[in-house]
Amino acid sequence: MQKVSDWTIHRLSSYHRLLSEFANEGKEYISSHELAQRAGATPAQVRRDLSCFGTFGTKGKGYLVADLISKITSILGIDRDWRVALVGAGRLGSALFSYKEFRKRNFHIVAVFDSDRHKVGKHWADVQIDHPDDMKSIVRQRKVDIGVIAVPADTAQSVANAMVDAGIKAILNFAHRKLFVPDGVTLRNVNMAMELETLSYVMTKNRTRR
Amino acid sequence: MQKVSDWTIHRLSSYHRLLSEFANEGKEYISSHELAQRAGATPAQVRRDLSCFGTFGTKGKGYLVADLISKITSILGIDRDWRVALVGAGRLGSALFSYKEFRKRNFHIVAVFDSDRHKVGKHWADVQIDHPDDMKSIVRQRKVDIGVIAVPADTAQSVANAMVDAGIKAILNFAHRKLFVPDGVTLRNVNMAMELETLSYVMTKNRTRR
Repeated sequence: MQKVSDWTIHRLSSYHRLLSEFANEGKEYISSHELAQRAGATPAQVRRDLSCFGTFGTKGKGYLVADLISKITSILGIDRDWRVALVGAGRLGSALFSYKEFRKRNFHIVAVFDSDRHKVGKHWADVQIDHPDDMKSIVRQRKVDIGVIAVPADTAQSVANAMVDAGIKAILNFAHRKLFVPDGVTLRNVNMAMELETLSYVMTKNRTRR
Repeated sequence: MQKVSDWTIHRLSSYHRLLSEFANEGKEYISSHELAQRAGATPAQVRRDLSCFGTFGTKGKGYLVADLISKITSILGIDRDWRVALVGAGRLGSALFSYKEFRKRNFHIVAVFDSDRHKVGKHWADVQIDHPDDMKSIVRQRKVDIGVIAVPADTAQSVANAMVDAGIKAILNFAHRKLFVPDGVTLRNVNMAMELETLSYVMTKNRTRR
């Protein structure tokens, strides 16, 4: 299989959502053109992204919506449950915990950690907040797959180390600090300012054009 | 100027961050290869993205880091301040308000709205929480450029309508609801589950490979 960029995976993720919309609208087939238009990409880009994973679509008819949904589901690995540990029970952690889209996409937060002794022992829904000192045993017991870092930048690296030490192989980092993880551990950084920059780009462009 | 996809803009945004890292590391020049490697893209992709905006780089030497930073800054429109109104003073709103990266990238939250009468009148740092009924005059007074929606899905469309009515031309939506805005208004939807799907993709791929 050829090397697939994160950008392709992001787009697949976005195609998946849009295809569900098309399915809800009762569409059976869809062209790369229609999908591209809704995704803010080009038809060539859509075809190139999908071609990384095999041959899809029927000449002249386009893609069978249900079929493409199920194939992307399986490519993204969201046809199974993923068990997530969240570290940081602050504002961001709390927002992430109640973010319904995670659960809808089969990501379940099964453990929450915070080093603040006032928070440890409290419950968020049915999950108890634990101290990071207990991470290793809890991660093992609850079969955690993914760690989410929602702590301030200055403690993010030590949290990442603890996650790696606990056997977590995939980490999503919301802190603004470059983190180092050993080979074999996958790290992704989230930057919410990126979306605002798409907006400032569009507005700057429109202003220049006038 | 050719049509530029949102994905290209996202990558520019990411190149911008990485270039700042390279600058901090004392690098003066950088190749498309080095930039691509850190960005999780291909060198061809990097060159294609930049070529949308003119000619960059010197043959055999690569890109001058400082120069490329300043050009991308200007393309993204982040060489000026942007004034943001946040609607929804709940968990997510609170996390966004304290998200330092926004301010660092010149996005300033200058107004916060919530329809909960218990929240109206309270202050977050130096910003008072106001009722959405006052959106029109406040948006005008504070010269708001961008609206951020951080309310539950079922009220998101009415918030978007109020923003449009108040003259906001760019909206960032965190609610999971397809929103409709008139022509001339730019809408972007944020999906944080997308990043988790990059992780599940990698882990699924690794598992299949073993």
